[in-house]
Amino acid sequence: MAQWTNFDELASYKTLQSVKKVDIRKEMAGENGAERVKKYSVPMAEGLTYNYAAKAVDDEVLKDLCDLAKEAQLSEKFEELYNGAVINTGEKRLVLHQLCRGQLGKDVVVDGVNKREFYVEQQKRVADFANKVHSGEITNEKGEKFTQVVQIGIGGSDLGPRAMYIALENWAKKNNTLKMQARFISNVDPDDAAAVLAQTDASHALFILVSKSGTTLETLTNNAFVQDALKKDGLDPAKHMVAVTSATSPLAKSTDFLTAFYMDDYIGGRYSTSSAVGCTVLSLAFGPDVFARFLDGAAAADKAATEKDPMKNAAMLDALIGVYERNFLGYDTTAVLPYSQALSRFPAHLQQLDMESNGKSVNRFGEPISYVTGPVIFGEPGTNGQHSFYQLLHQGKTLIPLQFIGFKNSQLGVDVDIEGSTSQQKLCANVAAQIVAFACGKDDENPNKNFEGGRPSSIIIGEQLTPETLGALLAHFENKVMFQGFVWNINSFDQEGVQLGKVLAKRVLAHNTEGALTEYSKLLNI
Amino acid sequence: MAQWTNFDELASYKTLQSVKKVDIRKEMAGENGAERVKKYSVPMAEGLTYNYAAKAVDDEVLKDLCDLAKEAQLSEKFEELYNGAVINTGEKRLVLHQLCRGQLGKDVVVDGVNKREFYVEQQKRVADFANKVHSGEITNEKGEKFTQVVQIGIGGSDLGPRAMYIALENWAKKNNTLKMQARFISNVDPDDAAAVLAQTDASHALFILVSKSGTTLETLTNNAFVQDALKKDGLDPAKHMVAVTSATSPLAKSTDFLTAFYMDDYIGGRYSTSSAVGCTVLSLAFGPDVFARFLDGAAAADKAATEKDPMKNAAMLDALIGVYERNFLGYDTTAVLPYSQALSRFPAHLQQLDMESNGKSVNRFGEPISYVTGPVIFGEPGTNGQHSFYQLLHQGKTLIPLQFIGFKNSQLGVDVDIEGSTSQQKLCANVAAQIVAFACGKDDENPNKNFEGGRPSSIIIGEQLTPETLGALLAHFENKVMFQGFVWNINSFDQEGVQLGKVLAKRVLAHNTEGALTEYSKLLNI
Repeated sequence: MAQWTNFDELASYKTLQSVKKVDIRKEMAGENGAERVKKYSVPMAEGLTYNYAAKAVDDEVLKDLCDLAKEAQLSEKFEELYNGAVINTGEKRLVLHQLCRGQLGKDVVVDGVNKREFYVEQQKRVADFANKVHSGEITNEKGEKFTQVVQIGIGGSDLGPRAMYIALENWAKKNNTLKMQARFISNVDPDDAAAVLAQTDASHALFILVSKSGTTLETLTNNAFVQDALKKDGLDPAKHMVAVTSATSPLAKSTDFLTAFYMDDYIGGRYSTSSAVGCTVLSLAFGPDVFARFLDGAAAADKAATEKDPMKNAAMLDALIGVYERNFLGYDTTAVLPYSQALSRFPAHLQQLDMESNGKSVNRFGEPISYVTGPVIFGEPGTNGQHSFYQLLHQGKTLIPLQFIGFKNSQLGVDVDIEGSTSQQKLCANVAAQIVAFACGKDDENPNKNFEGGRPSSIIIGEQLTPETLGALLAHFENKVMFQGFVWNINSFDQEGVQLGKVLAKRVLAHNTEGALTEYSKLLNI
Repeated sequence: MAQWTNFDELASYKTLQSVKKVDIRKEMAGENGAERVKKYSVPMAEGLTYNYAAKAVDDEVLKDLCDLAKEAQLSEKFEELYNGAVINTGEKRLVLHQLCRGQLGKDVVVDGVNKREFYVEQQKRVADFANKVHSGEITNEKGEKFTQVVQIGIGGSDLGPRAMYIALENWAKKNNTLKMQARFISNVDPDDAAAVLAQTDASHALFILVSKSGTTLETLTNNAFVQDALKKDGLDPAKHMVAVTSATSPLAKSTDFLTAFYMDDYIGGRYSTSSAVGCTVLSLAFGPDVFARFLDGAAAADKAATEKDPMKNAAMLDALIGVYERNFLGYDTTAVLPYSQALSRFPAHLQQLDMESNGKSVNRFGEPISYVTGPVIFGEPGTNGQHSFYQLLHQGKTLIPLQFIGFKNSQLGVDVDIEGSTSQQKLCANVAAQIVAFACGKDDENPNKNFEGGRPSSIIIGEQLTPETLGALLAHFENKVMFQGFVWNINSFDQEGVQLGKVLAKRVLAHNTEGALTEYSKLLNI
């Protein structure tokens, strides 16, 4: 059994406090910099590479981080997780999202059910359903094919699946595997559902209602909104909707749906893209084969994360460097900067994944801790961000570590050669240039044109954004966040911080408030 | 003439360092909290209200902030700005975006040109052009109406106009004033242009090429990309494209365009939504009348920002409270949280506006400063964010000030009543609940369910998101950022921090690199 100890009680915590800080600007200059780029690189799953040459580490820091990994028993804890331990201590639950994409350890059986088999069974049920929709065996009331799919969900039932859909939409068009266009309704703002419905040909649309508990306020409200709209169009909602929920939820047995696909309590919302939550919409949109390839990529990244040597385990190393930046270099925020328009909503997904998992102030036993935990995550695709917030990143007073992502090839392969280079080459040239500009800076007599440098970054590089590399990317970050949670000795799988707002909102709607809340309710005309 | 002095040399800097910190949790409890909500409120333009009851201020702090406003001569500096002083010291330029929407001071004449008249003339030229496009007087080669408009631009030529388009698209549909659907191409990633073009009926599309200098790498590349695609479709690009640029740019006299509309060096990219940059695409999309209403709203907010008493000037007060949080409470980041799906990209616009303007380390004379300046800005619409990163906001180790925005009414007016409340009421109930949850927290024996509270927030409340209120919102934040720049004694109108990356990217494309940059170029296959 692994030992769960607060981070600041570990010997490596003290060691890391006193290890000599690395001057990135100096280290990344000249031939030494070139050597670092060659050396500080780890192969990842699916041909991806994690390069951390421009991070504020050297062999000494890395050695201490490896010691930390060992002392914090990161590999042992991951092993316990995938073998079915109760890692989600707050909710007393197993953490099984990896089982959706492979079996890393022994069989996990809960209440007589082999969970891997359960998840695979759901995937098969979804695949069978999707194939029947695509072939025209399952149709609308008039016997016409469904051509569009609309996911109704919020949080993890929206951000991950939506980011993945956007990431693969163009790839799928190019590869003739876009079966149905997908849209997403998430916000309780009625303008969200109304606008999506206005763009949707409801008579040929399948709606997926996604709520694990079957009680999510926004999702049930939007469900009613959509049912209303369908009825007004003379359509039978029950012929246009499927549910994704847990087998015990009120939605599971409802006759309001063509069918229901199941997830369970062992997969948190932000980790649910690999489950029926992502499987249903992505299988309908791209076909089950594409979703299977996505899972293969994620499974390969999970496998890679079992490597015990942090220097060969990109997710673990990425996690350790992030911890070093957060707890010893004092950086509060991390920017995620994919040089890929297809990943435009990937930072929004990571925002939930990371901030909801590790934005905690108590350890996994519910005791307050005194060290900082998860950072703020934000980001936009490059090169767009260069023309927006990079000013602050380069010359601001607050230092922000950066996580770049780049691909050698575009998805669509349509390009134009201007002044001797393609757009794709310009895109790649920019991310290379930014890494060096951030790290090395540039002296100028005019302080306004001076670049201090010393801004740390890493980059994940791939050949192309495909289902496999996307799956590997998703799992890489899930595993990174998990390892960081292990180091911080926190529970990365609950989210008690979202509860209070829900309770108070209900009170406002019931007009059961007092003091400031009553006054705000008046101001907002509730 | 105003005195430009470093912030830490002001007497009020010292006063603010020692003013007693406010315990929000205590202040916002019970009847005192209710009183604060009623009292700490400023009317803004267009019926908006800025409420800062849940900020960490009291009468004492506010008094000191008012003293700061006076000592830093915020009103005088704004007056100098709108009267045509060289406020952009780095580039030695006037700062005139407010002149696009009104005349606050005396005539500003540069090289014999009255700038207000110049901007109005461009608006009239755009309006005339847009009306002719809408009426079918200006058509494609076949004499068919243009039905779509595509903006090609990056940074300020993209983020602001795009955010405004998204903000008003549904409103315009509802009010039968959506004349042309708009799309945007920004990224040099070839998949961006290719994907937008694939969705566009090019034969009925007008393209707007936006680059002040006429030299922006991404925009010129995407211009070539689009021209290529049009030619392949057998279309004449010159019959499908207009330019928005400065009169001295190489694009201004080009025969590649139907016509060109002009901006000038006195309006920075991130402030250019009110200029021809936003005017062209928004007038084509919604009609010139709607754009005029948007400018009216912005003009009203500018007028409101001339109020000398900070307690009656929302932009100034918002700025001062932000400075207090940044420099004296030590917060690095601010989250912008609009409870309005239509404002989904407004935080991305503010990210550029704020971080590019105030992410600086030198004062307006180019001298290094020792106090912190602009914060990191991020945000997503509520209630979506509640199911994503709010966990960290409520229970994380790092405290993030919050800026909420909410409207009493939806844009489309389509709604559904579930369990006694509409979706719009649920949306508003949630933002009210969040403010109080963040401020007051809630004690729980279980530390994992404990909410510390003390998280400061403000809210801007309006009746509805309309062209007028949107214009007022935009200008409010522009003026807030401007006032903060004045306090910090920095130049909020240049962006030298974006230059180094451009230079290095060119070197990569010319294969003129060494050291680490050469190695990164190899990794990325350039």
